[in-house]
Amino acid sequence: MYRTHTCGELRLADAGATITLAGWVQRTRDLGGMTFVDLRDRYGITQLVFNMETDADLCQKARKLGREFVIQVTGLVAERSNKNTKIETGAVEIEVTNLEILNTSDVPPFTIEDNSDGGDELRMQYRYLDLRRTPVRNNLILRHKMAMEIRRYFDAHDFIEVETPVLIGSTPEGARDFIVPSRMNPGEFYALPQSPQLFKQLLMVAGYDRYFQIVKCFRDEDLRADRQPEFTQIDCEMSFINQEDILTTFEGLVQHLFKYTKNIDVQLPLQRMTYADAMEYYGSDKPDLRFGMSFKNVTDLLKGNGFSVFDSAEYIGAIVAPGCSEYTRKELDSLTDFVKRPQVGAKGLIYIKYSGDGSIKSSIDKFYTPEQIQVVLDSVSATKGDLVLILPGDKHNTLGQLSELRLEMGNKLGLRDKNVFAPLWVVDFPLLEWDESTQRFYAMHHPFTSPKPEDIALLDTDPGKVRANAYDLVINGTEIGGGSIRIYNDRLQNRMLSLLGFSPEQAQAQFGFLMKAFRYGAPPHGGIAFGFDRLVSLFAGLDSIRDTIAFPKNNSGRDVMNNCPSTVAQEQLDELNLRIEMRKPQA
Amino acid sequence: MYRTHTCGELRLADAGATITLAGWVQRTRDLGGMTFVDLRDRYGITQLVFNMETDADLCQKARKLGREFVIQVTGLVAERSNKNTKIETGAVEIEVTNLEILNTSDVPPFTIEDNSDGGDELRMQYRYLDLRRTPVRNNLILRHKMAMEIRRYFDAHDFIEVETPVLIGSTPEGARDFIVPSRMNPGEFYALPQSPQLFKQLLMVAGYDRYFQIVKCFRDEDLRADRQPEFTQIDCEMSFINQEDILTTFEGLVQHLFKYTKNIDVQLPLQRMTYADAMEYYGSDKPDLRFGMSFKNVTDLLKGNGFSVFDSAEYIGAIVAPGCSEYTRKELDSLTDFVKRPQVGAKGLIYIKYSGDGSIKSSIDKFYTPEQIQVVLDSVSATKGDLVLILPGDKHNTLGQLSELRLEMGNKLGLRDKNVFAPLWVVDFPLLEWDESTQRFYAMHHPFTSPKPEDIALLDTDPGKVRANAYDLVINGTEIGGGSIRIYNDRLQNRMLSLLGFSPEQAQAQFGFLMKAFRYGAPPHGGIAFGFDRLVSLFAGLDSIRDTIAFPKNNSGRDVMNNCPSTVAQEQLDELNLRIEMRKPQA
Repeated sequence: MYRTHTCGELRLADAGATITLAGWVQRTRDLGGMTFVDLRDRYGITQLVFNMETDADLCQKARKLGREFVIQVTGLVAERSNKNTKIETGAVEIEVTNLEILNTSDVPPFTIEDNSDGGDELRMQYRYLDLRRTPVRNNLILRHKMAMEIRRYFDAHDFIEVETPVLIGSTPEGARDFIVPSRMNPGEFYALPQSPQLFKQLLMVAGYDRYFQIVKCFRDEDLRADRQPEFTQIDCEMSFINQEDILTTFEGLVQHLFKYTKNIDVQLPLQRMTYADAMEYYGSDKPDLRFGMSFKNVTDLLKGNGFSVFDSAEYIGAIVAPGCSEYTRKELDSLTDFVKRPQVGAKGLIYIKYSGDGSIKSSIDKFYTPEQIQVVLDSVSATKGDLVLILPGDKHNTLGQLSELRLEMGNKLGLRDKNVFAPLWVVDFPLLEWDESTQRFYAMHHPFTSPKPEDIALLDTDPGKVRANAYDLVINGTEIGGGSIRIYNDRLQNRMLSLLGFSPEQAQAQFGFLMKAFRYGAPPHGGIAFGFDRLVSLFAGLDSIRDTIAFPKNNSGRDVMNNCPSTVAQEQLDELNLRIEMRKPQA
Repeated sequence: MYRTHTCGELRLADAGATITLAGWVQRTRDLGGMTFVDLRDRYGITQLVFNMETDADLCQKARKLGREFVIQVTGLVAERSNKNTKIETGAVEIEVTNLEILNTSDVPPFTIEDNSDGGDELRMQYRYLDLRRTPVRNNLILRHKMAMEIRRYFDAHDFIEVETPVLIGSTPEGARDFIVPSRMNPGEFYALPQSPQLFKQLLMVAGYDRYFQIVKCFRDEDLRADRQPEFTQIDCEMSFINQEDILTTFEGLVQHLFKYTKNIDVQLPLQRMTYADAMEYYGSDKPDLRFGMSFKNVTDLLKGNGFSVFDSAEYIGAIVAPGCSEYTRKELDSLTDFVKRPQVGAKGLIYIKYSGDGSIKSSIDKFYTPEQIQVVLDSVSATKGDLVLILPGDKHNTLGQLSELRLEMGNKLGLRDKNVFAPLWVVDFPLLEWDESTQRFYAMHHPFTSPKPEDIALLDTDPGKVRANAYDLVINGTEIGGGSIRIYNDRLQNRMLSLLGFSPEQAQAQFGFLMKAFRYGAPPHGGIAFGFDRLVSLFAGLDSIRDTIAFPKNNSGRDVMNNCPSTVAQEQLDELNLRIEMRKPQA
């Protein structure tokens, strides 16, 4: 060992001990006859002191230390006269008697501080230096702790972790697969899994009863700001259970994680909200419940009074912004501009101010009597001091616009605190989604999701109305995970695939081995998968998943640190029977 | 929940309770008016009983159950008159009052028993049925437990698990990479990692201090019986340590694992043996120390006596087979045949029988006096009743032949018990291996391994003599893992790469980002990686790693269950700018 202690370990009680530390030079300061060095390692920072009077040579050596030099020091733990209460080692310093330079360092291209002066691109290029910064390191330590606690919970609940293969067959349903040419099977390809879905269902057929895995998955999609080509999933499946068993088991995991990584108590059961209610009252299947402001349907109260904007609307919805009755013209104009942005798409914004003194002022005063307005205020439970914001239009789009407006008001009013967590289950998702462009149904969750037994008859008459035994875990407006009770009968599975437009041959080619397995005693089963990167990001209070990942890729799927992907030798392609043939650029 | 208890849970104390179970029909037996069903799930087997007198309809229904039907039953826990002491639930049976068939099953293509009647190929095709068998399931449960205990040990020792990327750059050194075409970076490829080596070293540069990961790795090699294209590694790295710290930390892991998964106490420290000694005394860098029979060098005693076979030999080695002095001519002939097999390659076998009565008989009686033979017996510490086996030849090959002979004798004498474990460290490996065919040095471990400081001077004068700070963990003749102290200085690293025949440009292209990182304060560091599949296989007493893996591939890298790899659509290749162009078959 190059050290007797870490840089986060020494306390006043250690004063008088002779110790050895090793780490990185965070900074040096020369104060007259003394030189101070902050020595950093993963565990903390300890102050070193060198004295010109005691040992001039050693002190001179210390003065020449550059930032990020790696050194080993031996010395005496002493009480600091000027204590630093911000760090745990702040009561002591080391009077150094020996200094060994283990490695030098070029001047780093940016400062290794909590708030670095380095831009994104530069920090990604020198990711190993960026990873030295405390906030980044803390994210990765949190990630490790969360993974440990997840496994501890599952293990205690009789789940076993089974590794499923990374080299699998390609399944065209869903996003685009990454493919891997096989040398031993010329002209053939493996695919990297988008999820272990089929394998975990096979494990249930195999009787494994309770499976989990923290597992890398892959999607060759055009990357948006917060997507990565490889991502980590907490993947789970259980047998002989119904939907409520799944919700109970996995909300227990949520409670456990909050307790043991953030010391936050979550009350169970979590709120359950149907998909229909989430859409009706929050305009979203992932409502942020850190605050209220649910939608009130005021269509019947406001339609038919001669105000054409309302009279032509399919739906009129309102939210109540508490304590905002005194918003200025400028503030209201800015809200109007917000809803009129193309990303939101409303035509305008109607308001009713219900002042603290009881006076009422609205942008529709000329169409409604004060009594009519009062009825609206009562119906949406507005109280004095509130501002009522109203949007009209076709129902689908208006709910979406109200949702954006609600979140914006939540931001303005400081109701979306990153240290507050509001988890809920959204349940009873529709089984199928109709796609206008291709004129066919798509599976809203995936093709293995079971319809609700009471809705099965609708499969023939009105497939779009069929609800699924599918559920999402939502926290603070983010979908953390989703799952479903599965079909476990080959006849129903065939029927689903045919509804989704698979020919019997296609169904056989892609999912034949699962359907075959279903003929050998498949148990009732269901499961869920959580996005681990996103969960860590939420727990860490980050806006992006990128800093929950040690070596992330950029939006072009590149690792700029080691310049990958890259070209490969022609011999390597020859062995794989492949030739690169660049397509002409699209017109 | 479809059940109140599992099939492994009920005991005599539960008699009288009304319970519900769900599981698979293992077998049914009709005995006159009674029908017995063994119901199986992951946790065990419980006997169900149906009585014609009590409920004829129900009993008739039970009689029609096929093997592997999935059923749910409710009934009364009753004491069995005819107890089965072989299973933990053997004291009770369930008097069934309700039977629900959850799913039927076709007749399985082989029996779901500990010793199945299914051949390898068939069982791989129906892997989900093979996985139902208790021995296979137990292997996967053991694997889960071992992974849990490994993580528990590392977490308690301040290691953090960091996920390194699966889509990385291709590095030609070492085995063949699997490559993954990038759609977003046309004409470029990712590679799947053969190990996270470079990333774990970067994590040390980043100050992570103690890293581990249980991680999938990939190698596109022609598969021998016990290789898989994807395999799992326990990957570790530490900073500010020397070799002894590494050995101490990871032999602690070995002790922990044996204790908590097999309740076996392993004494620490483990034996350390130099590579030179392992070769000299066991003819192998992975000696099986479950038994002795180390080699004795009898060259000087036997050379120069007129026996040309010995006189022309560079080396003459002997092993002592205890208690084998009375081997018959036939047995000795069979041993001679063994060493003469082309895989072993000896020309013949010389023996000395040292009988229990003190009489001596050897195949070289006419060249040596009894006194000379006695000197040999004394020098190899043979005692009465032993058989001494001797091989002569050039040293390198003879050591290898003696090693094969020793292992064969170990097998014959039952000294290689799967329930006995003999772990050791082999240390001080050579840094470099000379390859005659390409006339260059190769890194014996990998190009990042540090030479022993005291041997660095030899790099210029006699590179083949330089020893490395490299070590292997060997258990029962199997290499479980290996690692090294790394170079952490870009100049030494450059010198190593140049010794290995890399031009400065090649070194820069392949390892430039690591060498660049070394210029920013790399700490002294080192690590190790263990083959997890092999470790599980050893703990489970298996001969192959295949049954430690839920969904393994066959020797052609195929998953015969889901027929992967497979062809992909031309559009998919178009998007990747690829064309398949089959090479002409090799002449």
